[in-house]
Amino acid sequence: MEKKLKRWQGWAIFLGSMVVVFLLGLLSSSLMERRAEQASVFNNKKVEIKDSDYDKVARNDVYRDNYQREFDTWKNTAQTTFKSEYNSSDAVDVLDARPNIPILWAGYAFSWDYTTPRGHMHAIEDITRSLRTGAPGVGIETQPSTCWTCKSPDVPRLMATMGGSADGNIDAIRKGAAKFYSGKWGDEAWAAEVANPIGCWDCHEAETMNLRISRPALVEAFERRGMDIKNATQQEMRTLVCAQCHVEYYFDNRDGKVNYLTFPWDKGVKVEEIEAYYDEFEYADYIHAMSKAPILKAQHPGYETWQMGIHGQRGVSCADCHMPYMSEGGVKFSDHQVQSPLAKMDRTCLVCHRQSEETLRQNVYDRQRAIDQERTILEEQLAAAHIEAAAAWKAGATEAEMQKALKDIRKAQWRWDFSVASHGAAFHAPVEIARILTNGVSYAYDARLALAKVLNNHGVKDVNIPTFKNKAEAQKYIEPYIAGKITSFEKLESDNDRFLKEVQPEWVKKAREKGRLTMAL
Amino acid sequence: MEKKLKRWQGWAIFLGSMVVVFLLGLLSSSLMERRAEQASVFNNKKVEIKDSDYDKVARNDVYRDNYQREFDTWKNTAQTTFKSEYNSSDAVDVLDARPNIPILWAGYAFSWDYTTPRGHMHAIEDITRSLRTGAPGVGIETQPSTCWTCKSPDVPRLMATMGGSADGNIDAIRKGAAKFYSGKWGDEAWAAEVANPIGCWDCHEAETMNLRISRPALVEAFERRGMDIKNATQQEMRTLVCAQCHVEYYFDNRDGKVNYLTFPWDKGVKVEEIEAYYDEFEYADYIHAMSKAPILKAQHPGYETWQMGIHGQRGVSCADCHMPYMSEGGVKFSDHQVQSPLAKMDRTCLVCHRQSEETLRQNVYDRQRAIDQERTILEEQLAAAHIEAAAAWKAGATEAEMQKALKDIRKAQWRWDFSVASHGAAFHAPVEIARILTNGVSYAYDARLALAKVLNNHGVKDVNIPTFKNKAEAQKYIEPYIAGKITSFEKLESDNDRFLKEVQPEWVKKAREKGRLTMAL
Repeated sequence: MEKKLKRWQGWAIFLGSMVVVFLLGLLSSSLMERRAEQASVFNNKKVEIKDSDYDKVARNDVYRDNYQREFDTWKNTAQTTFKSEYNSSDAVDVLDARPNIPILWAGYAFSWDYTTPRGHMHAIEDITRSLRTGAPGVGIETQPSTCWTCKSPDVPRLMATMGGSADGNIDAIRKGAAKFYSGKWGDEAWAAEVANPIGCWDCHEAETMNLRISRPALVEAFERRGMDIKNATQQEMRTLVCAQCHVEYYFDNRDGKVNYLTFPWDKGVKVEEIEAYYDEFEYADYIHAMSKAPILKAQHPGYETWQMGIHGQRGVSCADCHMPYMSEGGVKFSDHQVQSPLAKMDRTCLVCHRQSEETLRQNVYDRQRAIDQERTILEEQLAAAHIEAAAAWKAGATEAEMQKALKDIRKAQWRWDFSVASHGAAFHAPVEIARILTNGVSYAYDARLALAKVLNNHGVKDVNIPTFKNKAEAQKYIEPYIAGKITSFEKLESDNDRFLKEVQPEWVKKAREKGRLTMAL
Repeated sequence: MEKKLKRWQGWAIFLGSMVVVFLLGLLSSSLMERRAEQASVFNNKKVEIKDSDYDKVARNDVYRDNYQREFDTWKNTAQTTFKSEYNSSDAVDVLDARPNIPILWAGYAFSWDYTTPRGHMHAIEDITRSLRTGAPGVGIETQPSTCWTCKSPDVPRLMATMGGSADGNIDAIRKGAAKFYSGKWGDEAWAAEVANPIGCWDCHEAETMNLRISRPALVEAFERRGMDIKNATQQEMRTLVCAQCHVEYYFDNRDGKVNYLTFPWDKGVKVEEIEAYYDEFEYADYIHAMSKAPILKAQHPGYETWQMGIHGQRGVSCADCHMPYMSEGGVKFSDHQVQSPLAKMDRTCLVCHRQSEETLRQNVYDRQRAIDQERTILEEQLAAAHIEAAAAWKAGATEAEMQKALKDIRKAQWRWDFSVASHGAAFHAPVEIARILTNGVSYAYDARLALAKVLNNHGVKDVNIPTFKNKAEAQKYIEPYIAGKITSFEKLESDNDRFLKEVQPEWVKKAREKGRLTMAL
C-alpha cells in the first residue's frame, strides 16, 4: 500500500511536470510564430522600393501595401483629439494663452503666430498656414528654404537630386544640402516639391526598412564632436531618428555658408554649453525690438533635454514612449501615431511602472505644474525687463549704461526658451529644467535691478508694466516698436489668407501634376 | 528502443523535478528558520523591561542583552567617518562654508553656531556643545527646556513623571508635556535628568518592542487634523517614529501656553500652507537684526518634504533607506546606525534599483548639485536684501516704505530655510524644492527691487554688498547690529568653554549618581 502511494505520487509529479512543459511549449511557439509573422511582413512585401527610385521613395502612400499597420497608425497622427492638463494634439494658440510671450519675441516672427505642434501628418499644412512663413507671392517673404528641412521626406529626395547623386543614402543627400538651404521658402523649386508630410523615408531606408539618418545636420554635428553616427546601436537609432529634427539649431551664414542648418553642440548640449558656443561668435537670432537685447531663440531642444532626465539616462528611447509596441493579429509592431505617451499609458508608462494610470498621470502633472509655475515667473520678469529697457532707451540711456542689463536679458531669455520650447522638457528633465529656470529668473531680475539704476540716472521714477489679457493686447503694445518691419498684424493675417487661397493651392496642384504627391491629404 | 528512450526521458524529467522540489524545500526551510530565530530573539529575551519602570526604560544599555544586534548598530551612530559630496556624518561648520548664512540669521542664535548634524549617539553632546544653548550658570541662558524634547528617551520619562502617571505610554507622557516645556534649558531639573542620547524607548515600547510614538507634538498635530495616529500601519510607523522630531515646529506661547512644542500642519504641510498657518497670527521666530523683517526660522521639515518626493509617494519609509535590513548569523534585523543611505547603497538603493552603485550615486549628486546651485543664488540675494534693507533704515526709510520689502524678505527666507534645513530635501523632493527655491529667488529679488526704490527716494545711489570669505568676516559684519543682545562672538565662545568645563560635567555626574545614566558615552 505504501509503495503504491509513493508510486502514485511520483506519477502525479511526472504528469504535473509534463503539463508545465507543454504550456511552456505552447508559449514559446506563440512567441516564435509572432516573430515569424513579423519577418513575413518584410519578406512578403508586395512592392519593391529602392532608395534610388526618386519617383517613389518620398511618397508615403507607396509604403502602405507593404507595411499596412505602420502606415495606418502613422496616418493617425492627423488626429487631434488627445488632451491632458499640459498636452494637446490640437493646435493651441500659445500667444493668446500666455500674452507675455509676444513681448518676449517682439521683432521676431514668433510674436506674430505661435501654436502648439500637431502630428506629423500636419507638417506641411501647418508650416504653410503659419503667419511666420509670410505670404510669398502676395505679401512678405520671410523665411529661407532651410525652413522646409524637417517637414517632408521630399527634402532628402531634393537634397540628393540637387547634389546630383543617384543613390538615396545620406552621403548622396549631404551632397546637395548646401544648395537646398540656399533658396527662399516660397520659391516654387522647393515649395511645389516638398509635398508629402513627415513620413516613412525620413527615418527608414526604403529597401531594408532599417532606421536611417536622412538629415545632414545631425550627422555633421556628430562628426564635429568626433563621433560617427553610423556606429549607433538600434536602440540609439530609436532616438536619433527623432533627433534629426527635435533639437536646437540655427542657420549658419559664416564662411560663405547660406542659411546652413547647424546644431550648436560643439561644446556640449547643456544650456550653458550651447550658450557659450553662440557667444563665441556673438550670434543672435534677432535684436529685440524693444530692449535691443541680442536674443537667442531656442528652437525645440527635445533630444538635448531628454538626455538630462532619468528616462534618457536609463536608455529609454523616444520611440519606447512615443511609439510604443502594440499587437494586432499576432503581429507586434511599433505604433507610428507619434504623440504624448499619456495618450496610451497602458502601452507606455505601464510597461515599466507598476503604479496605476491615475497615479502616474498625477506624477507627470506634478512635474509639469511645478515647472509651469517657474516658467510663468520668468516670463513675467522677462516681459517687465524688455518694457523697462525700452523705457530706459526712451529716457536717453547710452549703450554703455545698458550693456549689463541687455546681457542679462539675453541670458535669461535663452534659459526660458530652452526650458519651454521643446514642450516635453518639464517631464523629461524636471530637475535640470528647474535649475535652468531658477538661473533664468535670477538673470531676468539682475537685468531689472540694473535697469532700475539706469532709469534712476535718467530721472524715471516708475515704468508701467501692463498686464496683457490676450494676444491682441500684447501685439497692439509692440506694434509701435516694429513699425517699418511689418505694416500691422491685421495686414499679415489678410495677406496670409490670400496666400492660402491663391498661391499655396497652386503648389499642391503642381506637386500632384508632377506625381510628387499621390495621396489624399 | 524507441519506447526505452521515451521511458528514459520521462525518468529524467521526473528526477529533475525532484531536484527542483528539494531545492525549494531547502530554501523555504532556511526562510522559516530565519523567522524562527527572529521570534526567538524576542521570546528568549534575558531582561524584562516594563514601560512603567521609570528606573530602567530610558537607559539604552538596559536593552543591550535582549537586542544585541540592534544595540550594536545603534551605538555605531557615534561613528562620523562617512562622507559624500553633500553628506557628512561628522559636524561641518555650515556658517564657515556658506558665510552668507550668518547674515540671514543676524539677531538669532543660529548665526552664532550651526553645524551639520551627527548621529543619534551625539544628541546630548551636541546640544550642550552648541553656542546656541548659551552658557547656563556662567553666561547667558538662551533656550527653554523645550529644546531638550528630541534629544533623549529621558524626555518621555520626565514628561510621564511630571504628569504624575505610573504608565509609560503616550497618554501618560502627554499629561506632563506642558510642565516639561515650561522650564529653562539649563535648569538642573531637566539638564541633569536628560542624560541618555536618542535611543530605544524613543521609538519602541519597552515590553513589546512595538514601534511607538513617545512625543506629544506629533500625536497632537494629527489630532488637530482629525486623524488618530494609533491607526497608523506598521509601514507608516517606520516613518512616523522619525516624524516625531524630523519636522518643522515652533514654540507656541499663545492662550497661556509656555513654549509648547507644536507642529504647524493645521492647513497642510506644503511650504505655502505652513506659511499661511504662521501668517494667520503673525508669528515670527525673530525680528531680523538688520532688515527688521519678521523671520520664520524653518527647523528641519524632513517628514514634510519626504512626502513631496517620489520615494515618499511610493510608500518607501524613512527606515527602508536609513535603517535598511541586514543579516547576521541567519538573523534579519533593521540596521540601527541611522545615516545617509549613500553609506550603504548595497542595502538601500540597490534593493529596488537595478543600476550600478556609481550610477545611482551620480543620480543623487545630480539632484543635489542642481538644488545647491539654486539655494546659493537665493542665499546671495537674501543677504543682499538684508544689507540693503539695513541701509534703507539708516537712510531714514519709514515703516510704510519698507513694508513690501520686509514681507518679501520674510517669504523668500522661509522658502530658503524650508528647502535646506532638513538636509535631505534636495534628494527627497528635488522638483518641489526647486519650485520653492525659484519662488524664493523671485521674492528675494522683489524685495531688492522694492528696496532700490526706497533707497532711491532717500538719495542712496549704491549699497556695498560685501563678499564674505568665512564665518568670522560675516559675524564681524553683523556684530554692530546685535550689540546689546550679546557682547561679542568671542565672549560667547569663552563662556561656552567655561560652561563645558564647569557646569555640564556636573549634570552628567548627577545623572550618574541618580542612576539615570549607566552607560559609558
